[in-house]
Amino acid sequence: MPTLRIALAQVNPTVGDIPGNAALIRGWTRKAAEAGAHLVAFPELALTGYPVEDLVFRESFVAASREALVRLAADLAHEGLGDIAVLVGFLDADGRAKISAEADPARGPRNALALLHDGRVITRYYKHHLPNYGVFDEDRYFVAGDTLRIVRLGGVDVAVTICEDIWQPGGPFAVAGRAGAGLVVNINASPYELNKDDVRLPLVRRRAAEAGAAVAYVNAVGGQDELVFDGDSMIVDADGTLVARGPQFAENLIVAELDLPTSDDDTEGDFGEMWVERVFLSETLAAPSSPAPTPVIAERITDEAEIWQALVLGLRDYVRKNGVRSVALGLSGGIDSSVVAAIAVDALGAANVIGVSMPSSYSSEHSRDDAADLAKRTGLDYRVQEIAPMVAAFMGALNLSGLAAENLQARVRAVILMAISNQEGPLVLTTGNKSELAVGYSTLYGDSVGAFNPLKDVPKTLVWKLATWRNAEAARRGEIPPIPENSITKPPSAELRPDQLDSDSLPDYEELDAILTGYVDGDLGRDELIADGHDAALVDRVLRMVDIAEYKRRQSAPGTKISIKAFGRDRRLPITNRFREGM
Amino acid sequence: MPTLRIALAQVNPTVGDIPGNAALIRGWTRKAAEAGAHLVAFPELALTGYPVEDLVFRESFVAASREALVRLAADLAHEGLGDIAVLVGFLDADGRAKISAEADPARGPRNALALLHDGRVITRYYKHHLPNYGVFDEDRYFVAGDTLRIVRLGGVDVAVTICEDIWQPGGPFAVAGRAGAGLVVNINASPYELNKDDVRLPLVRRRAAEAGAAVAYVNAVGGQDELVFDGDSMIVDADGTLVARGPQFAENLIVAELDLPTSDDDTEGDFGEMWVERVFLSETLAAPSSPAPTPVIAERITDEAEIWQALVLGLRDYVRKNGVRSVALGLSGGIDSSVVAAIAVDALGAANVIGVSMPSSYSSEHSRDDAADLAKRTGLDYRVQEIAPMVAAFMGALNLSGLAAENLQARVRAVILMAISNQEGPLVLTTGNKSELAVGYSTLYGDSVGAFNPLKDVPKTLVWKLATWRNAEAARRGEIPPIPENSITKPPSAELRPDQLDSDSLPDYEELDAILTGYVDGDLGRDELIADGHDAALVDRVLRMVDIAEYKRRQSAPGTKISIKAFGRDRRLPITNRFREGM
Repeated sequence: MPTLRIALAQVNPTVGDIPGNAALIRGWTRKAAEAGAHLVAFPELALTGYPVEDLVFRESFVAASREALVRLAADLAHEGLGDIAVLVGFLDADGRAKISAEADPARGPRNALALLHDGRVITRYYKHHLPNYGVFDEDRYFVAGDTLRIVRLGGVDVAVTICEDIWQPGGPFAVAGRAGAGLVVNINASPYELNKDDVRLPLVRRRAAEAGAAVAYVNAVGGQDELVFDGDSMIVDADGTLVARGPQFAENLIVAELDLPTSDDDTEGDFGEMWVERVFLSETLAAPSSPAPTPVIAERITDEAEIWQALVLGLRDYVRKNGVRSVALGLSGGIDSSVVAAIAVDALGAANVIGVSMPSSYSSEHSRDDAADLAKRTGLDYRVQEIAPMVAAFMGALNLSGLAAENLQARVRAVILMAISNQEGPLVLTTGNKSELAVGYSTLYGDSVGAFNPLKDVPKTLVWKLATWRNAEAARRGEIPPIPENSITKPPSAELRPDQLDSDSLPDYEELDAILTGYVDGDLGRDELIADGHDAALVDRVLRMVDIAEYKRRQSAPGTKISIKAFGRDRRLPITNRFREGM
Repeated sequence: MPTLRIALAQVNPTVGDIPGNAALIRGWTRKAAEAGAHLVAFPELALTGYPVEDLVFRESFVAASREALVRLAADLAHEGLGDIAVLVGFLDADGRAKISAEADPARGPRNALALLHDGRVITRYYKHHLPNYGVFDEDRYFVAGDTLRIVRLGGVDVAVTICEDIWQPGGPFAVAGRAGAGLVVNINASPYELNKDDVRLPLVRRRAAEAGAAVAYVNAVGGQDELVFDGDSMIVDADGTLVARGPQFAENLIVAELDLPTSDDDTEGDFGEMWVERVFLSETLAAPSSPAPTPVIAERITDEAEIWQALVLGLRDYVRKNGVRSVALGLSGGIDSSVVAAIAVDALGAANVIGVSMPSSYSSEHSRDDAADLAKRTGLDYRVQEIAPMVAAFMGALNLSGLAAENLQARVRAVILMAISNQEGPLVLTTGNKSELAVGYSTLYGDSVGAFNPLKDVPKTLVWKLATWRNAEAARRGEIPPIPENSITKPPSAELRPDQLDSDSLPDYEELDAILTGYVDGDLGRDELIADGHDAALVDRVLRMVDIAEYKRRQSAPGTKISIKAFGRDRRLPITNRFREGM
């Protein structure tokens, strides 16, 4: 049995930065070669970044991807890296995309994979299963492939597949099994969702059993717009034994050796769901120049640690990939802005976080103290700006009362933050949690102002859990806990009128979050929620708030997605929808 | 040959308002019965409104649609309307929607049509071609049907189809032809695009020829979020002769008689692309109680009239369907806000439009005069609010210069408009045209603040054309032209610093719009634009502005779509995309 040394390059590409991604691939290929790997696999669409969305409609972009692939093969050979087989995801096309009823392309753009070796593109594979649910729109952008490519590498038959191909039984993995593959490589851009890593290993094992082959699963890492890719690459042998596994949320090279069966099968053609084509690269493997590495199985982390790292990476990459260095946010002393500040400091460093306390006449003394305490604990760039003079100028000119007067304060704060952004360059962060956003408990163009919201997909009860976890983590490491204890324990308040508390307007957050999870994430209707044990009057109250808040949210900032349904692209509802549950 | 009297009910449903839509259908069925029609057809998804988007994932919504259909059939019979055959679009399902890789429904939601008669649901048809490009996401929401239903009505074989079914050759129309149908009815929710009506008649004729049958095409009318459905329903006989055609942008009942061939074909089963099933309703037709109507062929209107009506209807329905009555906007005296004010007055009446002039120290005398002149011409609710005191309060507290000081003025105006909105209830309109939005020539959270933007999809050069057209139209009708001539002729300026002109920052609008049309609407790359004759340096400058403006626009207001690519759902680009044309 030949011993194949495999490397999985769990890297962080940037959408659209094709030259940068090519350089990234060359750099990690060198590391894989230095580790003596025969084969290195990169994530789905690593050359263009993922998701490329409407860039696929621009022929210049497709051409740039295709040209960069050929150049990458040549560059690798010129750099002395021609011996290692490199699997890389890229955007290919054999026709224009379908963008109207009348356009009828023969085929179209392809979510593709290429095997590079010795300066040449050896073979190409087109993704067979295109996901078109949740954050995925691939039926819109790509045409599915129906030919499985199997590469004879060192006498071993290696089948190559892309992402969703591994989620469906009876597809490319089943065909690979019937065609006698010894190894199936699956390259991914699989977005993080809470506990998704718990699903991946059993999935990879099921598919190894279906193919009767070892499986090498490589995933991207990094934030891209509202998505975070969490890595968690792994190698499982044909028996389902986990051989190696990468960490979540960090770039990594996973290297392991597998003893794999040789093959002399040369059947091609119709295999049922797919066509099979074979490529013969080598019958023997070069002996590695370095000793076999000890495969690493990265430890699993707690839910809170996982979410915290997702939010930190999502923010860091959003800021960095937009070409910015720093952020600014309002510090109220409350739990939401405190947690966002702590995330921002972890993501960007304290020197790149401007925290502005903007007290009004309704701000309590503890709010001012808690904001200052947070600033001291984290070391961020702290400023205080009283809003009374600006509020007075508006109140003197306009006749405002009630909600209009409350919202005015939040909007004056937004103008101050945007002025700092325009004057000094930071992106403004908004800090409304998912529970508040869902029920519309925020001021449009006030506290909803900002380029990014780390808590957009984090319910209030989880915000508290994350704060407690982050402080405990600091204590465990012997560091100062970043979040003032008082911010965690005091009752939440918007402080826009005297003695205001969230509980004046909203149900208890435990109850609220349970209903919101059912309604927003689970698409449950009123009657199902009541059947689940929720109080009918409370369900009606919450659903009415959510339905009314729908169109407001269309204008809120993007944020990192961590659950099944964040707002925005995940949850597309008509703005003018008149459907009311049970009414 | 039996003479079938057909009515097409070109109506305006509201998404989610199932009881209201059922009442609308009953009311127009009565009108059709009074006109002696044997058959009345309503638009696609008329019972739920279109597009329903993620409401399809909520089982309570699907159940509400299905139950309402059965009740509708019964209610029609109770109201003495059981004799007329009613074709109506509704949401059906035979399984849950696919919302994740692991969910694997046997089937799922259906974009469906039902024939109601004598209190019963006689047959159901499921849309065969699901569009998944542009504004359509139907692969995400629906499962395609593969059975064509043919109803024997008065001895005539009537095939029933839905929307996209008519856009593809070789589909249901070809099958209807092979199955011997004498009439094909096609029900639509076909969104307006500039000059789309020029495409529809030739399309309907091609399909009539393919089916060898008459075609009755009914479309919805009305605004829904960013879409406008423009009606333009029509009846074409088997020779391709246009028999009747409805107006654009207004509810209407199109009634015409057709002499149609009888059929005794009873072949069912496999017809190639689709299965065929037949339903036998009647072999003879009742003699109509009223004389045959004279079919109307509505006159075509000019491009400017068409666009103006689309924008007026889009705004009116956005406001109305969101349950609001009035709007507020800032009046600068410039062309954009003047045109938006005129659209709003046409849509909602002058009494429901608040126009606020908010001059600063940089506002010219003509700006104040032109705003006042517009108010006088239109009769809207006019107010003046100097911004100097609020600007001074911010400038006294913050150290602002350059762009930060310019943007402050726009943001103070936004706070004033939102305060009026909170205090008095109007939706705020924003007025930035498509050219400005594309290149980012606007203040985020300043002039971009608002719930709806009528000019979101209107390039600057078209704004001028529309203003000229609207004034000429008023003169033709003997009314006062709403837009001051000076607003049309003066050079555009943001007036955020002394003597500022748009031309300081932007290319000539004729050149700019030509490049934007290629880049935004046409997905052309840099080299293609230069090959089309544009100056290379100008192309680079414009493309850089557009690319930088991308993420800003994610936070702008919705608006009515009129072109191939409006911003937002039509044009989905990664926020952090790093691809730069030719760089």
